[in-house]
Formats: sequence, C-alpha cells, structure tokens
Amino acid sequence: MKLLPGKESYPQVIHESMHYSLMAGGKRLRPSLVIAAAEAVGGTRETLMPFAVATEMVHTYTLIHDDLPALDDDDLRRGKPTNHKVYGEAVAILAGDALLTQAFILMTHATLMDSISPSNVLKAAHEMAEAIGSAGVIGGQVVDIESEGKPVDPATLEYIHIYKTGFLFRACVRSGALLSGAETPQLEALTRYGAHIGLAFQIIDDILDITGDEKMLGKDVGSDLDRDKATYPSLFGLEKSREKAEDLIEKSIDCLQDFDDRADPLREIARFFVQRTY
Amino acid sequence: MKLLPGKESYPQVIHESMHYSLMAGGKRLRPSLVIAAAEAVGGTRETLMPFAVATEMVHTYTLIHDDLPALDDDDLRRGKPTNHKVYGEAVAILAGDALLTQAFILMTHATLMDSISPSNVLKAAHEMAEAIGSAGVIGGQVVDIESEGKPVDPATLEYIHIYKTGFLFRACVRSGALLSGAETPQLEALTRYGAHIGLAFQIIDDILDITGDEKMLGKDVGSDLDRDKATYPSLFGLEKSREKAEDLIEKSIDCLQDFDDRADPLREIARFFVQRTY
Repeated sequence: MKLLPGKESYPQVIHESMHYSLMAGGKRLRPSLVIAAAEAVGGTRETLMPFAVATEMVHTYTLIHDDLPALDDDDLRRGKPTNHKVYGEAVAILAGDALLTQAFILMTHATLMDSISPSNVLKAAHEMAEAIGSAGVIGGQVVDIESEGKPVDPATLEYIHIYKTGFLFRACVRSGALLSGAETPQLEALTRYGAHIGLAFQIIDDILDITGDEKMLGKDVGSDLDRDKATYPSLFGLEKSREKAEDLIEKSIDCLQDFDDRADPLREIARFFVQRTY
Repeated sequence: MKLLPGKESYPQVIHESMHYSLMAGGKRLRPSLVIAAAEAVGGTRETLMPFAVATEMVHTYTLIHDDLPALDDDDLRRGKPTNHKVYGEAVAILAGDALLTQAFILMTHATLMDSISPSNVLKAAHEMAEAIGSAGVIGGQVVDIESEGKPVDPATLEYIHIYKTGFLFRACVRSGALLSGAETPQLEALTRYGAHIGLAFQIIDDILDITGDEKMLGKDVGSDLDRDKATYPSLFGLEKSREKAEDLIEKSIDCLQDFDDRADPLREIARFFVQRTY
C-alpha cells in the first residue's frame, strides 16, 4: 500500500509540500509509541505501520498550521524554513489539511482490517479523532494562542500542555493498544503512562526553549520568552520544572509494572523523553 | 449522542466559530444525498444521521479555509461575514481543522457500529477521506488557486470542477449506499449518478456567479470574473454551459432506472441541482 501519493503526483506542489514537512527529520516519537504500546500487549509492528505513520502525519499537520503567520509565525522548524516560507501560505494551509486527511485515509485503510477486527480499527480511529479535535489538541492550541502576552495561572498552563501536546501522545499509546486487542486493565495502565509522558514531554520542551542548543533543536531558542508565552520554567523555575518532569517519567514507568519485557521500548521512550537534548 | 460540542464549551471561541459557519444557512445538500442514497437502497435515515452531518462539517471546513485571505480572500459567505472576518484568521484556520476532525469523530462513532457492520462504517469513512484528500477535493482546490489569472484549457477546468466539487458529492452518495449495504451494481449506478450531479452542480455555480441574485446567493456576484477565474461560461458561453448541466442531470436520472420510488429523493435532488437559483 502507498502511505502517501508520490512527490511527483498531480497536483505536484501540494504533494511536494506534504513530503517536505513530513520528511523534515522529525523524531517519529508518536509512531514509535503506537508500535511500542502494541508490542507491550502482544501486537506486531507490521500490521500497525499505516496507523503509526498516520500519527506522524497528524503531528506534522499541527506543526504546519501552528507555524503559519496568523498563529505562531515561525520561520524555522527542524532547522529548515517552515512550510509556508517555502510554498506560501495557501499551499501550507492546504498541505496541513491534506496531511490530516491522509492520516484518516490510513487509519481507516483496508490493510488494517485484514488483520485487526474492523471494530477495533474504528475504535482506534475514533480515539485519535477525539484526541485531536476542538476538545483536544485544537482546544489546547486555541487557549495557547489566547493566552499569549497575558498572565497565565498554573491550571491554564497545565490545560494547554495536556491538551495541545499530551492528548496526542496518550491517543498514540491507547490506539496502539486498542488495535492489538488490549484488555481493560492494560489499557487503563497504558492510558496513565501516556498521560504522564505527554505532560513531561512538554515541560522538557519548555526547558529546552531556554537551555537548548539551537542547532540541535533546529528552531529558535528563546522564542517562548520573546513571545511572552507562559511556560513551566517561567511559572515554577527551571529546577522545579525539571524535577516535575523527572517525577512524571518515574510515575509513567511505574504504570508499566504489570507488563513484561515486551514493554521495554515504552520504558526506554519514557526515559528518552526526559533525557533528550533536542 | 452529541454531534458537536456546545457553543459554550471551553474553549468557547473555537466552538462559537465552528457553530457560526455550520449554522450559517447552508442548503444541506451533502447530508441530503447521504440519506437519499441510503434510502434508495433500503437504508434508514436515523442510523445515517451522524455520518450525514459529518459531510456538512467537511463542506463547511472547506468553505472556511477557501475564504481565508491567503486563498480566495472572501468577506461574505451565505450573506454573512466569513469566519475569519468575525473570529480572525487564527481561529478560522483552527475552526476549519476542528470541523474536519469532528467529521471523522462522527464518521467513526460507535452509534454507527450498533446498526451497521463496522467493516461498512470503515469503508464509508475511508471513501470519504480519499475523496477529500490531496488526490481529491484538496487537489482540485490547489489547481484552482494555481490557475487564477492564467489561461485554462477545458481539461484543466473539468479537473478543478470534478475534484474540488464533484468528488465530495460522489462520496456522499457512495458512502450513504455503502453504509446501507448496497450491492455492487447499485453502487456502480449511484457512483455514476453522483459524478454527473457533482459536475452539473459546479457548472450551475459558475452560471449563478454571472446571472444570480446577490441577495439569494448570499455572496458577491461576479467574483469569478473579478478574479479572472476560468469557469464554464467563460470557456463555453452561458447557453452551452446550461445545456451541458441539463444534459448531465438527465444522465444522472437515467442512472437510476433500475431503482424504485425509494430513489425519488435522489431524482428530486438532481432536478434541484439544475433548477436552483441560489
């Protein structure tokens, strides 16, 4: 199966633009989580691939739209000019739309149905859609935009982080497990794992915006400060923020105590979340 | 089940913005087609409602994004200020994203699975996703934007119309039929019906942009001309364009010859497509 129309497919500019952002060197954390969660409950990598790739498309679409002049107005992403800087705003808006749509093409693909029950495929696609809608990722993005330049209380900041970033991570873990037929107690444990690592990821992101290396990050350091954006370090200080993130990662690994060594990739991903420098 | 979070749901601005465009008085042609196609093959209205509403959300999302300054830069839609004129560009972009996502929340909803086989639900959702992606509606929109102010040959114009407008109409008809368990010959006949009315709809749209009443249409008349946009009337003249549309509608009704009177709503919708004045 084809995961995405080729770069040269008509109309070329939209497909080039989709490939440009999708292949810009992301860390592929979301697909890794889908697969690691599936493997933790006895699923296999191969059958999950279309769904896993779909989550990277979802993530990439949110980045393209967040970077637009009307939103964060960012020029640089992963060390390269942002999508609209290369292809213009119109194509960037449509490329984001098309990646989101392509994600649902993959999430509902017949290949999945061959090896997974259609009812589980639907549940996983529904889970993903709810996580990234107006009561999920998009809701977090809206509150983030509305909060710029205003004093933000800790509860609002946590809302932004959990919704804008955490929900997609959690949904990746849950859908990998759902697609592999996880039992309810396993699913509940993985849900808590996903929630903890999601929040930890964003706290580390805030920290790296202050302490990170621009070359490693591939984006401007200090952009949150420039934009007068509320972050964990700005509310709680760098040290307390790092403690909070490390605590969340420990908790996330504790959630996996009833899982055997097939959950080791999930444990490693959790550790990477807090140790990463980019 | 809730088809959309309430207007007052947090974060309020995104939900207000989604409601604003969704409730701006559309003709609801796409949901009508889903239901009429389902009924033509013996399905029932009630079970199809979430999926039908989803198609109107898809349509509304495309309008919100098409109207943005970076694309068509329209101020008026259905007699009201466009979404970005009321809520600003950032919220309009996110409201479009959220309506597209909400459509997939509904298309994969468990309510559908109760009465329709999960495998058919998946097929219909996949059908819809493919129709509106970069090799469908978005592809048509890209070519439309790229063709502005350039000489356009008839083949390109037909591509734009079929992809940008026709694919969604055809997918509505096909998914209504798929969800109701249509047999292959029925599905093939309905596919041809859907393709014909889709192209006819857009030709009439082009004609109304010249001859229509601004108050009835709720948008600026002559905007295609102002924008130096290729249209059927500009390539073939008004009379030949109307003949072509009427011919397509006759053909579409011919496709339904093996259907009984339960296909009458489909026949009526086809006639409305060519008789409409708004």
